[in-house]
Amino acid sequence: MPSYTAPTKDAQFVLHDVLKITESGIPGYDELEADFTSAILEEAGKISSEVLAPLNAVGDTEGCTLENGVVRTPTGFKAAFDQVKEGGWPGLDMPEEFGGQNMPYVIGTAVGEMFSASNQAFTMYQGLTHGAASAILAHGTDAQKAKWLPNMVSCEWTGTMNLTEPHCGTDLGLMRTKAEPQGDGSFKISGQKIFISAGEHDMAGNIVHLVLAKITGAPEGIKGVSLFIVPKFMVDDDGNMGERNSVSCGKIEEKMGIHGNSTCVMNYDEATGYLLGEEHKGMRAMFTMMNEARLGVGMQGLAQAEVAYQNALEYAKDRLQGRDVTGVKNPDGPADPLIVHPDIRRSLMDQKSFAEGARAFILWGATMIDRAHRGKDQDADGLISLLTPVIKGFLTDQGYDMTVKAQQVYGGHGYIEEWGMSQFTRDARIAQIYEGANGVQALDLVGRKLAQDGGKHVMAFFDLVKTTIGELKGQNEAFDQDFIEPLKAASKDLQAAGMYFMQNGMKDPNNALSGSNDFMHMFGHVCLGLMWAKMAHAAQSALDGGTSDKDFFETKIATGRYYMARQLPATALHLTRIETGAETVMALDAANF
Amino acid sequence: MPSYTAPTKDAQFVLHDVLKITESGIPGYDELEADFTSAILEEAGKISSEVLAPLNAVGDTEGCTLENGVVRTPTGFKAAFDQVKEGGWPGLDMPEEFGGQNMPYVIGTAVGEMFSASNQAFTMYQGLTHGAASAILAHGTDAQKAKWLPNMVSCEWTGTMNLTEPHCGTDLGLMRTKAEPQGDGSFKISGQKIFISAGEHDMAGNIVHLVLAKITGAPEGIKGVSLFIVPKFMVDDDGNMGERNSVSCGKIEEKMGIHGNSTCVMNYDEATGYLLGEEHKGMRAMFTMMNEARLGVGMQGLAQAEVAYQNALEYAKDRLQGRDVTGVKNPDGPADPLIVHPDIRRSLMDQKSFAEGARAFILWGATMIDRAHRGKDQDADGLISLLTPVIKGFLTDQGYDMTVKAQQVYGGHGYIEEWGMSQFTRDARIAQIYEGANGVQALDLVGRKLAQDGGKHVMAFFDLVKTTIGELKGQNEAFDQDFIEPLKAASKDLQAAGMYFMQNGMKDPNNALSGSNDFMHMFGHVCLGLMWAKMAHAAQSALDGGTSDKDFFETKIATGRYYMARQLPATALHLTRIETGAETVMALDAANF
Repeated sequence: MPSYTAPTKDAQFVLHDVLKITESGIPGYDELEADFTSAILEEAGKISSEVLAPLNAVGDTEGCTLENGVVRTPTGFKAAFDQVKEGGWPGLDMPEEFGGQNMPYVIGTAVGEMFSASNQAFTMYQGLTHGAASAILAHGTDAQKAKWLPNMVSCEWTGTMNLTEPHCGTDLGLMRTKAEPQGDGSFKISGQKIFISAGEHDMAGNIVHLVLAKITGAPEGIKGVSLFIVPKFMVDDDGNMGERNSVSCGKIEEKMGIHGNSTCVMNYDEATGYLLGEEHKGMRAMFTMMNEARLGVGMQGLAQAEVAYQNALEYAKDRLQGRDVTGVKNPDGPADPLIVHPDIRRSLMDQKSFAEGARAFILWGATMIDRAHRGKDQDADGLISLLTPVIKGFLTDQGYDMTVKAQQVYGGHGYIEEWGMSQFTRDARIAQIYEGANGVQALDLVGRKLAQDGGKHVMAFFDLVKTTIGELKGQNEAFDQDFIEPLKAASKDLQAAGMYFMQNGMKDPNNALSGSNDFMHMFGHVCLGLMWAKMAHAAQSALDGGTSDKDFFETKIATGRYYMARQLPATALHLTRIETGAETVMALDAANF
Repeated sequence: MPSYTAPTKDAQFVLHDVLKITESGIPGYDELEADFTSAILEEAGKISSEVLAPLNAVGDTEGCTLENGVVRTPTGFKAAFDQVKEGGWPGLDMPEEFGGQNMPYVIGTAVGEMFSASNQAFTMYQGLTHGAASAILAHGTDAQKAKWLPNMVSCEWTGTMNLTEPHCGTDLGLMRTKAEPQGDGSFKISGQKIFISAGEHDMAGNIVHLVLAKITGAPEGIKGVSLFIVPKFMVDDDGNMGERNSVSCGKIEEKMGIHGNSTCVMNYDEATGYLLGEEHKGMRAMFTMMNEARLGVGMQGLAQAEVAYQNALEYAKDRLQGRDVTGVKNPDGPADPLIVHPDIRRSLMDQKSFAEGARAFILWGATMIDRAHRGKDQDADGLISLLTPVIKGFLTDQGYDMTVKAQQVYGGHGYIEEWGMSQFTRDARIAQIYEGANGVQALDLVGRKLAQDGGKHVMAFFDLVKTTIGELKGQNEAFDQDFIEPLKAASKDLQAAGMYFMQNGMKDPNNALSGSNDFMHMFGHVCLGLMWAKMAHAAQSALDGGTSDKDFFETKIATGRYYMARQLPATALHLTRIETGAETVMALDAANF
């Protein structure tokens, strides 16, 4: 049975030693002293390890069941959900006026990693609610906010996001769900939505569905889509629960993973709904919290990689198999532990250097969201908008690969469900798909974000790398050689790829789009390289300052050196591929495949 | 529901246009005219598509059940197994004297890909039997062969391989299963074996277990291990079935995939067994067919990649989503098919170029096994021994990644079990683990095979690449540029890596072993690059000769160009990693991870 220990110390290191959040000038951050954030993270870590992690396998094994329209969640989920609610966790970064604790998003993200790592399927119930509440917060009328938010912030009621239909996923312009105005401000919503996470379940008094649909007579395509609030139970203006709305779960999907979350086919049969935001601007409303939602999914990639790594490490230390070729390490035992073997080390170092780099990247991204939202900083908004597809696509692709590596450490036992390593890979797999499949993230990055505002944000990113290099370099010779030089080289590769797109994308956009996946990954590597340079620098500063925690900071530098030496050079391969353009990618007629 | 079409035409191309098997001089190959092999492959393709493929999802959903010691296989498995037996498929490449058809191994491999692709879990029942029969063939006495082989060749009786115990997988020296001599030539075998594929089931009259165990008083470690035949039902010297032996299935493992195969915990409780081969030389006996067995597993990596690709391609052609950025391709439809999008193409080309390259590699490897066994060719034996870990490790790692890519093409539907794409990834996953986990393959390659016979075989490989380049180059300018130059560069990278190991492995073997995984992968790429150069050359020759099948051969060249441009350059990244040596890999104390 796998276990989970929250990486509180590492998150604290990133928040305080690396990002120096209290000095960042972001509104609300001055309160985030190390003792304070530590208390929150410790508490979140405790509930993650003690309450959520033990239910992870239960959720996987039992799954959710649908009987007579009622969805039953796995044993123990409801009690744990109550405990999470009592702790006030769902409203951690929600406004106080609706019952939240008004913490910055960066704290919600650090806590979110722990919840997700310990039980992704469980945590999605509150995650979806958070997303739906954010949409109402951003686009609802005052009356709508007052009516729906307090119960959603507390997770008394949960929320959902209804986009996909059987024939349309990415291309939402093909949507068929209809909304007919009733003349009283309400609409009758009819249609079928699929892949609705937490669509129906037994843990909340009500479920607030946010549904994309087309109002009768709306323009064709994506420009005719509006967003609606469609509750499971009607609620009157005094907040009293009324009769059941005509929305129902038609089926629970059998999925590869996240079995503990009920993924529903939802049928809307003239269900009563209320417009959220403006008519025909549903996509815009839905996309307002896209950066947050996608950062949250990227975080899931990190989270599964982290918990899988922890368990792979444990196994590698415990399992005795073979002998160290350079000399016996465990002479009193029948064999040495797996961790003596270089190829096991390589795998563990891949995982460790990814997880720690990704954590810094995610938390840095979260500070940008806070800077944009709380500080109304347009530049931060532009930068996080650029980095969002990288965070989502790169961290979930890599995160998945890391869970596969962790599983591999277990040999045959990794394939047996009882040992729990398979669940990490199966659960991690969804993050590459939902909230915009990673191919769409790459397309968003290269087809839209690069050129956004005249390329201003990507220029700002390169400036930032350059400035950071200028600030960090010269700490000592080894640091420059191990961190600054590789970061420079990788950043140069990334710039060369951008240049290639500019020069060749004009004559044929496919020259850029054929390299989109490679570009997203090389961008991710540069970001992690940047994070590692900052982390190593902070660690060396602590060592130079005579820290009492030498092992931690030395390990941090050694882990960073591994990343820079073994992972970051992938940018060169990505550049090589990108520079071959569209020709070999598009050479075949579809019929000749 | 996914489907499968056997790649008969492509296999024929490899066998006849590329490998030119009838001209190869390998004993038995002169009969393998194109019409003849085509007839066999067509027939195998038919049973694969029509009988085995439809049972693939059934096996996954139902799995195997254990009740009162009896294991029930999924609905339809027994009938299909009977059909496979009636067709004589299990004995295809087995000697005629035991009821086989005496076909070369290369034909068994081409057929094996089809069977595995259509239903891996099902095909393992006969695959394990084949392995066990091969061991008896190689090491049994005449009496043992006569007693066991005829029924195993026909699959009336199936076979198993029992190596792993709960505390020992790779490190079989830790084995605890005991064999006590009874004075009459038989032994009493006691112990527990785990992960025994096809360990118990309802499709055969008897099960012949091959079991590794230590004879009382045997030397410590791996040198004290012997191999035993332990039947489920006793068989007397006249071939009459007797009473049940004291071997039983204690449990069926819940696995990530291959649910249709019963993976058993097997308990031996003073079960009667017979020594196979010499005392204390069980490992040697087991390893005799290791090249074959591992090539067979590498082939599973290809097989799952192929079937997943076929279904991803189908979906990419059918599913309408978004528009081609260079101009609408399906003006009468609501959207263009997925296949117009460059990133979908990239994914499909990755898959296609891998599968076709891997098929050539596997079949080439199979000809080496035939050359070694049928032609008693020591050089071929040495070369395939070198390439075996590459075939197993590279093709299963890459094969798995390809199934993940294929699944990704389906977006959300890829995550839903009903669509079948998840099963391909879950089934493919095991091939990276069993028959020696891929880390062990890499270790075998770098730690043993490279230096074997004074490095003779790796030198022979480089000579072969060089000779092949000499033979192929100059076909035309484009060919040299697209195929010869990249192959030269990749081969140079591989040689540089080998050189690095030689120069640095002496002072610290970890300098070599830290790069073992990268070396295995770069070696695999060079092999596929070599195969693509040969295939493209053959295709161009056909075109130059005025073939009537222009599309096929042009597509072949275009697919190869993709591989050379986009995949083969990975060798440079692997070399970069290798040349960083052990330092960053081994830097941390185990306690500091």
